[in-house]
Amino acid sequence: MALTYAAHPIRVLGVDPGLTRCGVGVVEGAPGRALTMVKVGVIKTSAADDIATRLLTIETDIEAWLDACRPDAVAVERVFSQLNVRTVMGTAQAGAVAIVCAARRGLPVALHTPSEVKAAVTGNGRADKQQVTAMVVRLLRLADPPRPADAADALALAICHLWRGGTHSRLEAAVAQAGAARAGAAQAGLADAGRGFDRRRQQ
Amino acid sequence: MALTYAAHPIRVLGVDPGLTRCGVGVVEGAPGRALTMVKVGVIKTSAADDIATRLLTIETDIEAWLDACRPDAVAVERVFSQLNVRTVMGTAQAGAVAIVCAARRGLPVALHTPSEVKAAVTGNGRADKQQVTAMVVRLLRLADPPRPADAADALALAICHLWRGGTHSRLEAAVAQAGAARAGAAQAGLADAGRGFDRRRQQ
Repeated sequence: MALTYAAHPIRVLGVDPGLTRCGVGVVEGAPGRALTMVKVGVIKTSAADDIATRLLTIETDIEAWLDACRPDAVAVERVFSQLNVRTVMGTAQAGAVAIVCAARRGLPVALHTPSEVKAAVTGNGRADKQQVTAMVVRLLRLADPPRPADAADALALAICHLWRGGTHSRLEAAVAQAGAARAGAAQAGLADAGRGFDRRRQQ
Repeated sequence: MALTYAAHPIRVLGVDPGLTRCGVGVVEGAPGRALTMVKVGVIKTSAADDIATRLLTIETDIEAWLDACRPDAVAVERVFSQLNVRTVMGTAQAGAVAIVCAARRGLPVALHTPSEVKAAVTGNGRADKQQVTAMVVRLLRLADPPRPADAADALALAICHLWRGGTHSRLEAAVAQAGAARAGAAQAGLADAGRGFDRRRQQ
């Protein structure tokens, strides 16, 4: 079952949430296969508009992206403490809208931290924006770097999600090959570990 | 026009946002009239569920409240910096969901800070929770204090919104009575001040 899952390419919508600029990028891929960029862009709202108008614009646009690209999963950047509380608030609000849009359709939603994304894409959890963008360009074989940076970050999130999911699938496949009896016990343990991990990430 | 508005009772849904407990209260009233509590409650989600499930529960429940109570406006507590960043995040996420639910229906959304609510209900912007609850009980002529505190805070938010709106209406009525020519100029100034104020509150 794990092998079947890994063989099918899946499509992930990455969202780098923000009130003023919300990066959105869709990537298709499977572990061990080349990645393909489906679409990338930025949802912009004006600081002159009230918060209700801005969040509604983000919702309408995310819905349009989901309709157009039909992703199998949605990955949203998990926000940690930042110095500017106003920025954290806007990021949390925009992220909540994206999460609810996905959940309403029954799509799985995963949150990844910026360092998880950097580590997945560049191998270094402390990589700078230029390194992340350069790797996104290389991995997706793009002619030019996506602009602005929020768009590249959204693609990096989608890639991170594809690869982190892929890692779990490969582990599960290895366990499955280890034989029926032992595999049953080992997989139960692995599944438990996976659930605990997800819970920590999403709190 | 301002007098006509002030004479009609309006119904406000107050939301004290939170991921674990989201207070919801509906109050009907008009300036110079007694206030009536329509409904009060708390939307609860479990910390054991992932963020997508929790936000979707809040959305579903807020929608049910809007369907059942048909408010004319929605007032959401505006969150400022708090010490606990995780709490701020959850509050911002839950608040964003409530704001989008209202905006999707074309309902006006206002944000009020905790001190605005306390000042409106008790006359003191630094009042404690007990004082706010006591005034909510008195103003709505309740037999018992609403429990938990989040429920009382949601009612206080709705009352704050009714009265702040009422204050503007009474000012506009006074201006209107001051005579046609002078009123036109004065009201334009008042409307501008009101817009500037709303913008500051909602950024």
